Amino acid sequence: MDLTSESTTAAVIESFAETADPRLREILQELVPHLHDFVRKVRLTLPEWEAAIEFLTAVGQRCDANRQEFILLSDVLGISMLVETINGQEAGTESTVLGPFHVVESPQRENGDTIDLLGGNEPCVITGRVLGIDGAPLPGGTVDVWQCSADGFYDVQQPDVQPLGNGRGLFHTDAEGRFHFRTVVPSHYPIPTDGPVGQLLLATGRHPFRPAHIHFIADAPGHRSLTTHIFVAGSPYLDSDAVFAVKQSLVAEFAEVDDAEQARRYGVSSPFRAASVDIVLEADRVG
Amino acid sequence: MDLTSESTTAAVIESFAETADPRLREILQELVPHLHDFVRKVRLTLPEWEAAIEFLTAVGQRCDANRQEFILLSDVLGISMLVETINGQEAGTESTVLGPFHVVESPQRENGDTIDLLGGNEPCVITGRVLGIDGAPLPGGTVDVWQCSADGFYDVQQPDVQPLGNGRGLFHTDAEGRFHFRTVVPSHYPIPTDGPVGQLLLATGRHPFRPAHIHFIADAPGHRSLTTHIFVAGSPYLDSDAVFAVKQSLVAEFAEVDDAEQARRYGVSSPFRAASVDIVLEADRVG
Repeated sequence: MDLTSESTTAAVIESFAETADPRLREILQELVPHLHDFVRKVRLTLPEWEAAIEFLTAVGQRCDANRQEFILLSDVLGISMLVETINGQEAGTESTVLGPFHVVESPQRENGDTIDLLGGNEPCVITGRVLGIDGAPLPGGTVDVWQCSADGFYDVQQPDVQPLGNGRGLFHTDAEGRFHFRTVVPSHYPIPTDGPVGQLLLATGRHPFRPAHIHFIADAPGHRSLTTHIFVAGSPYLDSDAVFAVKQSLVAEFAEVDDAEQARRYGVSSPFRAASVDIVLEADRVG
Repeated sequence: MDLTSESTTAAVIESFAETADPRLREILQELVPHLHDFVRKVRLTLPEWEAAIEFLTAVGQRCDANRQEFILLSDVLGISMLVETINGQEAGTESTVLGPFHVVESPQRENGDTIDLLGGNEPCVITGRVLGIDGAPLPGGTVDVWQCSADGFYDVQQPDVQPLGNGRGLFHTDAEGRFHFRTVVPSHYPIPTDGPVGQLLLATGRHPFRPAHIHFIADAPGHRSLTTHIFVAGSPYLDSDAVFAVKQSLVAEFAEVDDAEQARRYGVSSPFRAASVDIVLEADRVG
């Protein structure tokens, strides 16, 4: 008997019945009816289907070692943030999106090092701690940091201007769970608009901007890994992030400090900007 | 206020409110809740999201001038067939999927020409008519034909074995709406399994086979274009097409004919195989 627009869905679901991995089976058997429902709901036409195939192909072909256009697409559709929210910690620091720029390994750096390899902008000192839910410091942890420049570009976007590793560093927490590094205040910036996702934003009248932020992935022995940002208080676009990733608890003051003694201690000129962050990690779930 | 796993969806829908094209707005504002519902329903984890990003990227990067892995993905998820079914003619010949192999222009050929440039297999004669709903012949029409070889490969899959254009032809209907050409009976075949879609089929225990068929796109002045197949009666996999595309009305007998006079008329040796097809097109919808 022929498949109808309704029975096609049941047939495709059934086709995945022999999937060995039960979780893969569950995911596919839910994906199919959700996608089919969408197609039926909007009565997708053949030219629209062709346009969708072309768009997805262009997204895939725009990806390379330094560019992840599918993450960008997931970001602007709010899917990345939804996945983060669903999987976020119950207690401790909130998570937010990974974003598409965690594409190169961050160089190992010592506490106090600078991640600003360009110079010429007002220095900024980030001090932080990695803590357990009980407030106990977590020594032996790592904090992977990446951010854009004061002009709003990541190193991989400006290979002729920025050395690879600018704005990036992998730090280790000390015996008191502390880390600190020098940098510059990142700028708000547009997500890359020179690809198919940029065309989507243009066609839909959406701006491409993200508020200024620094990315962190924090890890510590016996604790869950956390992917998050700190956002720069007062940055434009805090209320309309193109990727829906702002959490109020992650907004930090980047205050100006005019104190020669502190500047000396951190090895920067005065005045400088400073922000501090406590990253609170849940213990690993015991299976 | 922070976005929750529920309010993120409303925020993303709202972000598309200024889309100038109302149809694009409708499609995106339906796509977002369907995708978000899926993510919430299965509680997609971050490693699963990463695997999905990697899979989609690999699908896009597998596409080239001769290969369309996203169409293949759409096909094995039943989406291509669903779109065809929704948009099919109300009367006339049923449609079925375009498939991923309509990637090169079919060479212009004359009625009676062969599309089998390889030789060595039992010849087959296809005769057909393009008709309106009222049964009136449609002269001045075109019939774009493509099929795999007797070994189950399209020309673009075997550049070292098959000349480009083997199995392909663009024919014109005569004054009585007729067309005919020589070929070989196509084989059932596996869809390409050496890419990410093949890995998906492998992981889900699905076979990759399609029953034997010939593709057609028929056009005639004042009529709707139709994309369809004829399937070879008795072919394996007619009841489990990997892309869900079989319609009983499209199954045709490829009978053996042992008749020297007919063989002479068509310019083939005897015995030969023969199938006939009437392609019935609806009139254009007047807007």
